[in-house]
Amino acid sequence: MTAQPQTAPAYPAQKARRIVISVDAMGGDSGAQAVVAGMAESAAINPDIAFLLHGPRAELEPLVARRSAQLDGRVDYCDVPDVVTMEDKPSHVVRHGNGTSMWSAVQSVRDGAAAAAVSCGNTGALMALSMLRLRRLPGVNRPAIAILWPSRNPQGFNVMLDVGADVRADAGDLLQFALMGAAYARTGLALERPRVGLLNVGTEEHKGRAELKEAHGLISTCAAAGGFDFVGFVEGSDIPGDVADVIVTDGFTGNVAIKTGEGTAGLIGDLLREAFRYSFLSRLASLLALTSLNRLKTRIDPRRVNGGVFLGLNGTVVKSHGGADATGVSAAIKLAFKLAQSGFSEKLAARVASAAELTQNARETPEKTADEQKEGRA
Amino acid sequence: MTAQPQTAPAYPAQKARRIVISVDAMGGDSGAQAVVAGMAESAAINPDIAFLLHGPRAELEPLVARRSAQLDGRVDYCDVPDVVTMEDKPSHVVRHGNGTSMWSAVQSVRDGAAAAAVSCGNTGALMALSMLRLRRLPGVNRPAIAILWPSRNPQGFNVMLDVGADVRADAGDLLQFALMGAAYARTGLALERPRVGLLNVGTEEHKGRAELKEAHGLISTCAAAGGFDFVGFVEGSDIPGDVADVIVTDGFTGNVAIKTGEGTAGLIGDLLREAFRYSFLSRLASLLALTSLNRLKTRIDPRRVNGGVFLGLNGTVVKSHGGADATGVSAAIKLAFKLAQSGFSEKLAARVASAAELTQNARETPEKTADEQKEGRA
Repeated sequence: MTAQPQTAPAYPAQKARRIVISVDAMGGDSGAQAVVAGMAESAAINPDIAFLLHGPRAELEPLVARRSAQLDGRVDYCDVPDVVTMEDKPSHVVRHGNGTSMWSAVQSVRDGAAAAAVSCGNTGALMALSMLRLRRLPGVNRPAIAILWPSRNPQGFNVMLDVGADVRADAGDLLQFALMGAAYARTGLALERPRVGLLNVGTEEHKGRAELKEAHGLISTCAAAGGFDFVGFVEGSDIPGDVADVIVTDGFTGNVAIKTGEGTAGLIGDLLREAFRYSFLSRLASLLALTSLNRLKTRIDPRRVNGGVFLGLNGTVVKSHGGADATGVSAAIKLAFKLAQSGFSEKLAARVASAAELTQNARETPEKTADEQKEGRA
Repeated sequence: MTAQPQTAPAYPAQKARRIVISVDAMGGDSGAQAVVAGMAESAAINPDIAFLLHGPRAELEPLVARRSAQLDGRVDYCDVPDVVTMEDKPSHVVRHGNGTSMWSAVQSVRDGAAAAAVSCGNTGALMALSMLRLRRLPGVNRPAIAILWPSRNPQGFNVMLDVGADVRADAGDLLQFALMGAAYARTGLALERPRVGLLNVGTEEHKGRAELKEAHGLISTCAAAGGFDFVGFVEGSDIPGDVADVIVTDGFTGNVAIKTGEGTAGLIGDLLREAFRYSFLSRLASLLALTSLNRLKTRIDPRRVNGGVFLGLNGTVVKSHGGADATGVSAAIKLAFKLAQSGFSEKLAARVASAAELTQNARETPEKTADEQKEGRA
């Protein structure tokens, strides 16, 4: 293993309560300096955080030194030479990636050297490495990536999953996504009893694909025991809406949906800027409205909720957007810290373990019911 | 048949060139008065349009009389008593719907009494009735619904299909969507040689579902003969983007994507209004920026491009948004008129007929190639 910390400092008492976040310095579009700047932003406002930084130490130390005011005494290194690029195929990284910063960052969570990992790199490779090194939770078939999406709900965001861990999901997977998404909403959005919706092309029960109808039955059966309310089928317009807090779908649909939403929001933003540049009056208007517009921008700024959480593994991994700047990296680190501090991974494991039996029962029950109905009709 | 025109007026010479649009007056969320108001808006600016209006004549005549300035002498009636509701199952409407305004509106296109049909009603029922009464074009397996979506392209909009005709599509269907979408972009967006993209979760060729990889090969092979350029895989962010003019996907993914985009745009619009109401300065700003903001609103107003076109049938049917107001209905009527005037349905039929052979060849060729490759490797 190349991924062991190079130093093992004896922390003084005041540092003992610090939570160590494993950070992959490499592989993001904005380079290691954006990652280190994001660490500094987090460290400045959070006295309880420390970092295990993965990458070529000779390259990283000068970057950290420039932020010594925030980072002094907070950073240990795993000196690894290689980088996973955005072009690398996950299958290749899994076989040949053990000298990379991404591998090292995930490994340190497995070893217990860090409480959670953050990476801006290649999503597919990060998921493949995380599955390989951390393993799936017992009872989980497909892990999922969950994100927060701006919404009309009082908490300001909804949880959506899967947004791209896998292009497939059967009815049983969708049930697990419901359980995991509800657990994440409980911790991430502080919702006692999240409302879960299953994404479909209409809210009527007869609509949609066969696996969705089956999943509807499974999730209905498990909602009470899973500690959430099931609101049934929801549509794309409900992802930013207020009828559900957790939106469950397969990774193909979820990925297309969030990218369409992001693209549309980006187009509107650009057209809005263009509109404000149009005339003297509109330029003046944009100055007068600056505070309000900035407030709006902050409210829907994707950097503020940067971070897809990998759910269903033995350990917490947060995928930051590849193009994240310091603010985005800091948001992803904050999310990893929050999840580590709350013991989310352990809570989720317990929830999934108790749900595994539930799932088994639920999968058996509706099938029996369907058979019984058939017999009844025949 | 209950759906025959009750009157068969002998048109004077000046009316002979008018194109008759069949309009389903019933079944929309805003009622028949919004539909008639939309007809009046269209008639006011288009001297070449006439209508065949389907629904309970006693209820419709007073509405038309109130708009006599625009509609006098332009409206014939099909007096039918029943209405397809949003809750009706398509399978039920197909069996028992022949007294409904929707059935009658579609039937009049089949009979040649109208050049195209417009309805604000239940999408699933309208598609099922259209397939039943108009039949699919020879060579088309699954019809599709195509819409225009605001984009960064010079033409201001991209074509996207399927957005909900069917929840499934195999590789051959996706190829037909590419051909039909390109034909629609040629007529609807006046693009000589549209660029077609296939929606996926990444642009790399190894990503995504198996049927998408197969469709990638099929569409590549047919692009030149189909008169379009194939740009390969595109992502959700490209739906409002400028790398493709036509976005091809299955009806499940397409439906979720456009509803997510609409929902996100709606949320941003509401937050923007809220921001402008926040303080005296921001209220003043919104007054100053009114012209620019209205220009933006017009640019992305979904009512302006209201109308999903059913592609792949022997006849043109336009589905207006269920909640469309007069402006929205007018846009859908304008689209139906434009398609009828340009002979789109006949052009599409010719294109599909010549493509059917092409499709057959393309489906055989890549499979052979794959086999040959296998043999080569073995």
